[in-house]
Amino acid sequence: MECADYGLTRKLERDNLNLNPLQRGGVLPAAARKALYEFGDGYSVCDYCDGRLDKVTRPAVNCFLDDLAEFTGSDAVRTVHGAREGKFAVMHALCDRGDTVVVDGNAHYTTHLAAERNGLEIVEVPSSGHPTYEVTPEAYREVLEETLDRVEVKLAVLTHVDGNYGNLTDARGVADVCRKLGVPLLLNCAYSMGRLPVNLRELGVDFVVGSGHKSMAASGPIGVLGMRSEWEDLVLRRSGRHEKKELELLGCTSRGAPLATLMASLPYVRERVSRWDEEVEKTRYLVSELEDIGGIEQLGVRPKEHDLVRFETPVFHEIAASHPRKGFFLYEELKKRGIVGIRRGQTKWFKCSIYGMTEEQVQYVVDSFRDIVEENR
Amino acid sequence: MECADYGLTRKLERDNLNLNPLQRGGVLPAAARKALYEFGDGYSVCDYCDGRLDKVTRPAVNCFLDDLAEFTGSDAVRTVHGAREGKFAVMHALCDRGDTVVVDGNAHYTTHLAAERNGLEIVEVPSSGHPTYEVTPEAYREVLEETLDRVEVKLAVLTHVDGNYGNLTDARGVADVCRKLGVPLLLNCAYSMGRLPVNLRELGVDFVVGSGHKSMAASGPIGVLGMRSEWEDLVLRRSGRHEKKELELLGCTSRGAPLATLMASLPYVRERVSRWDEEVEKTRYLVSELEDIGGIEQLGVRPKEHDLVRFETPVFHEIAASHPRKGFFLYEELKKRGIVGIRRGQTKWFKCSIYGMTEEQVQYVVDSFRDIVEENR
Repeated sequence: MECADYGLTRKLERDNLNLNPLQRGGVLPAAARKALYEFGDGYSVCDYCDGRLDKVTRPAVNCFLDDLAEFTGSDAVRTVHGAREGKFAVMHALCDRGDTVVVDGNAHYTTHLAAERNGLEIVEVPSSGHPTYEVTPEAYREVLEETLDRVEVKLAVLTHVDGNYGNLTDARGVADVCRKLGVPLLLNCAYSMGRLPVNLRELGVDFVVGSGHKSMAASGPIGVLGMRSEWEDLVLRRSGRHEKKELELLGCTSRGAPLATLMASLPYVRERVSRWDEEVEKTRYLVSELEDIGGIEQLGVRPKEHDLVRFETPVFHEIAASHPRKGFFLYEELKKRGIVGIRRGQTKWFKCSIYGMTEEQVQYVVDSFRDIVEENR
Repeated sequence: MECADYGLTRKLERDNLNLNPLQRGGVLPAAARKALYEFGDGYSVCDYCDGRLDKVTRPAVNCFLDDLAEFTGSDAVRTVHGAREGKFAVMHALCDRGDTVVVDGNAHYTTHLAAERNGLEIVEVPSSGHPTYEVTPEAYREVLEETLDRVEVKLAVLTHVDGNYGNLTDARGVADVCRKLGVPLLLNCAYSMGRLPVNLRELGVDFVVGSGHKSMAASGPIGVLGMRSEWEDLVLRRSGRHEKKELELLGCTSRGAPLATLMASLPYVRERVSRWDEEVEKTRYLVSELEDIGGIEQLGVRPKEHDLVRFETPVFHEIAASHPRKGFFLYEELKKRGIVGIRRGQTKWFKCSIYGMTEEQVQYVVDSFRDIVEENR
């Protein structure tokens, strides 16, 4: 065995401006960095466990979960390993093999995998397609009604903000449709909870899942599963043999640093969510400035209501055609300027986010793209 | 909402000698602490992901998994969220609702939960009971044969080292039984992989699961699932819709710090496993010295073959009866001496481990227990 140096450094990505939308919402604040130090060792949150992770008082996991329930407008909340594991758990609790779920056409692949692993049939609500890829309550109603004519629908899933276009869906509108048709709705908030206000009760949904590593300033893997009280008995049902243990969570989920960092970050996350409007404004500014360069166009619903933006960038594709470094020029020009997170070799389109950057940093990003076009066109 | 200080400090447990067996194998070495710093942010290992966590090259997850396969004697290996999630995944892949699995009488509760969540029937191989609680290949054969007379057995599970008595089972012997009877065997190595040598091929088992946070010097939650090549197509089968994604792993498991720390710790873990004999000797010394005090007796198989020890301690129970601090005296006397990890108020028995302690520390623990008895008896 060659116990190699596996290249366990991330200096480049830590020291530079990272435009990768996956990375913007999971950056730890100082308090979470400290929690990481304190609780880095394996079973660290379990020193004073009496058999239930959600009841641990040192550190105060129990109080934290109360605060998290309030933060998400849920009646009951648990941590899970990630949004995907939250979706799997809800489907596993509500559905039997062969059952049908309805999901939106912008669903994350993990929604499909959670359903497939549970042996479920997926019916899709199509988006409006290029260039907006919008999922509307009307489209949702149509598909749901058609499907209900044929089969029972055990669960509906809506992606609150999708990871391809950063479209913010009308969750309240879809929830109204689902409630009228008697189908419980799970809202996948992996890209929203922790970035923008998410309140289960106000949105009228049955379940929310969130992602600590994606959007809640936590060290993954950790997710949040919130629900209405009427689902508690089913989704959080206990083991017949081990009466303290919740079956869908296999007893406990995050045992260490991920939970401690999520706890440490909650006050920070709560505060940043209140400044969501500023983030949206910043993103609209980015879109306007980049489109102004020419040969760059935002996809998805306009104007932007989320920081994740997908651009079509024919200008970079044209430059790549005659550039000595071909498609790699964009990555390399950005890296020279201390900007990372756009995939190497890709020039036709990219996804990016400036979530959490200062106005100066945003301006620097805008100027960098403008310079790269001007110097190479 | 009261975004409280949740008491996110662990100074007491970090600064003192911690006897809690849960905590001994998950202490991070310096290299893993550094990895925690580098990869603390949410999606940190995914900067250069092309859709498969196990193929990421920066950091070199792909090379690491090759080394981990060699370290565990597996044909294929994946990280999972923990040993329990590994067990659930194997059962989910191999079994249908209503199927039967055979498990040993010292199985961890998570084995039961993994089976129950999958809707499986559990048949148990009893241990020999008080005081040794031994699970033998003979007992395993008897129960397995009886069960096979009635129903098909889709999977057998054996706890390599149990968490109650720290008995090391004869995995090779049970594997021989299972192979002859045509039943695949999963070995739960949560308390062994990373502490003592575990080699799937040499033991003749089909699956091994390990725990990063429990025994592999990693920041949880993270586990290891190793298997023979003949199970790869089933357990690691891909999604029909997302051809890169492995269904039982919901695409990806640990996305950040847990994986980075497990990677950073592998050279350290590999080295410490080679010194397992010294750990066993130290534990036997502890047992001999504590029993020498009188009123303290080791349960489980003798002599010890693992660092986790369960003691019956009538001497402390007698002291508690007349001590002004009642049952709390033991916890408090230990804490005064800088020793933690024995539950508050508990005096009839306790579990402990001195895994990873220096000889001086072990001697200090022994002397402390002796002093406490002498001062209070």
